[in-house]
Amino acid sequence: MITGHGDDGYRYDVPIKMNFSSNLTKWIDPTPLVERLRERMPQALGGYPPPQAEGAREALASMLGSKPDEVLITAGATDAIYLVARAFPQRCSYIMQPTFSEYRDACLLANHDVRSMFNFPRNDVLPADAKIVWICTPNNPTGNVLNRYQVQDLIFRHPEVLFVLDLSYNNFTLESVIYPSNIMEYDNVVGIFSLTKRYGIPGLRLGYIVSTPKIIRHLSLRQMPWNCNGLALEAMKCIAEDYDIVPFDVVGCIKETLRLREELISTGILDVWPTQTHFMLCKLRTGNVAALKEYLVWQHGILIRDASNFCGLNDTYFRISTQTPAENDALVEAIKEYSRI
Amino acid sequence: MITGHGDDGYRYDVPIKMNFSSNLTKWIDPTPLVERLRERMPQALGGYPPPQAEGAREALASMLGSKPDEVLITAGATDAIYLVARAFPQRCSYIMQPTFSEYRDACLLANHDVRSMFNFPRNDVLPADAKIVWICTPNNPTGNVLNRYQVQDLIFRHPEVLFVLDLSYNNFTLESVIYPSNIMEYDNVVGIFSLTKRYGIPGLRLGYIVSTPKIIRHLSLRQMPWNCNGLALEAMKCIAEDYDIVPFDVVGCIKETLRLREELISTGILDVWPTQTHFMLCKLRTGNVAALKEYLVWQHGILIRDASNFCGLNDTYFRISTQTPAENDALVEAIKEYSRI
Repeated sequence: MITGHGDDGYRYDVPIKMNFSSNLTKWIDPTPLVERLRERMPQALGGYPPPQAEGAREALASMLGSKPDEVLITAGATDAIYLVARAFPQRCSYIMQPTFSEYRDACLLANHDVRSMFNFPRNDVLPADAKIVWICTPNNPTGNVLNRYQVQDLIFRHPEVLFVLDLSYNNFTLESVIYPSNIMEYDNVVGIFSLTKRYGIPGLRLGYIVSTPKIIRHLSLRQMPWNCNGLALEAMKCIAEDYDIVPFDVVGCIKETLRLREELISTGILDVWPTQTHFMLCKLRTGNVAALKEYLVWQHGILIRDASNFCGLNDTYFRISTQTPAENDALVEAIKEYSRI
Repeated sequence: MITGHGDDGYRYDVPIKMNFSSNLTKWIDPTPLVERLRERMPQALGGYPPPQAEGAREALASMLGSKPDEVLITAGATDAIYLVARAFPQRCSYIMQPTFSEYRDACLLANHDVRSMFNFPRNDVLPADAKIVWICTPNNPTGNVLNRYQVQDLIFRHPEVLFVLDLSYNNFTLESVIYPSNIMEYDNVVGIFSLTKRYGIPGLRLGYIVSTPKIIRHLSLRQMPWNCNGLALEAMKCIAEDYDIVPFDVVGCIKETLRLREELISTGILDVWPTQTHFMLCKLRTGNVAALKEYLVWQHGILIRDASNFCGLNDTYFRISTQTPAENDALVEAIKEYSRI
């Protein structure tokens, strides 16, 4: 890991009362899944997990309507990102920026030649030296969802390029997204998914990859055994048994996000990027985020994500994710208060 | 992962009643720790763990009497092995064989030039091209513990070589072993430790590395964030708070191991290597282990570890770990029964 991340309340010697800093949302309450895992805990921890997630992998495939050789379970989406970068080392990787910093960090560790793209390629023309293209949609931190057909067209026109699509926030938008079944239509796509976020259990580390059997085998041979902990594999089975074990009102969450966005804009001290998901990128018109972040933590126990270390952004940017209406209002009030000092 | 492992009961469509196949032992009952983790589960899973195990790392250092920059928490010992191999790629690695297969697999993935050593170097002379030497002590699968002073002398005489010592079974022997504080006396040693095994929670994936601040920093920069799941980090804190939260009668366990060894020898159909830990390597005098393994699983629900895929061993070898006296007796009886068919 080279750069910092959100959810960094552990840095502060003060209780965090409201956490807007990660991409988690209070709209998801993982309690039903956590309770089920509690029951299965002695078995899940007391023995070695199957070295290659046998069992959980079949459950995932069955849930997706795919074959076990088209999927790979990983210790969260981040594990998938590092595995893909390592499995295709020393390539020329283009990353659509600004985005999650781990694509870049993972590629640098695997000696990729790392380049940035700041716009979707015009007329679908990619740089001639592009071997791998990394795209996050819905995108962290901007909240932007790329048009699905546009992405698929780009993939179709570049069979010589490997596309790594991070679809971790697929469940957090009302836009048309790319599904696992879409990925399997191509020979040159790796889809990365997170279960951690949708089910509100990021502490457990659970994600997966969808691709062709050939690419999955290539990745699988480079994955260490017992990669996923036993409780994460149990969670995979619980989710496959009952997809809605943790309910999520995505329509309500997105509506509240749009309301929060309007409220933030009305403070008059910041711009907010349009978003199609449950988090948004904000830009202070004056001053820097470090001061705002310190103020919010120490005065209100509110944590936001300083987004200055995202490629292409600067110290005026921060990211927040939608929480309960009361918490969202408290954030807006605290920012208004800050604007008056 | 390239080769197979024990604890492969998931391969069989029959209940495993007695499991001798991993290096876990019934002499350790993790219940007190599992209960403590159950209480802390909602917090541990519901948020992101600190990206570099902040907090748990300090707790570990404090427990070991070292500084946080001398230790690194990993997702089990295997994660540590792969991290070290990757962090020092393309070296000439000598592995003291026969041993745990993951050193070799991890080195091959990191493009090491991998060589085997089958004996402790005479007069402390290492091959001239050795850049890294991998030693497991107590050794899996032989149960052999190297003389601590002999190992330390070898390290002292070869400051140009990096020694990777896997000390995962340190808690499972009465011999004099190498402690974290011994490792810190050298500039050229990486010590790998497991907490999974001692505390009977292999499903959780928890281990650590001890080395110099310089090497720890080199490794840490190559570790992905959120490497360890939140519950494993909680376990680290529980263990640091109360080292004896899970009691272990090592004297009783080793005594029972020696009794089991004598009983196995008395069957007359196999040889058993001398062991100084809680598992042992057995060799059938006739026939192959695959047949014995199938017989034990299908007739008795007993699982053993086929050790034929360890470097230098063949299809007559298997490994077992000591369980309860009643289970051990059942294993011996079942093997006697097999010898009569």
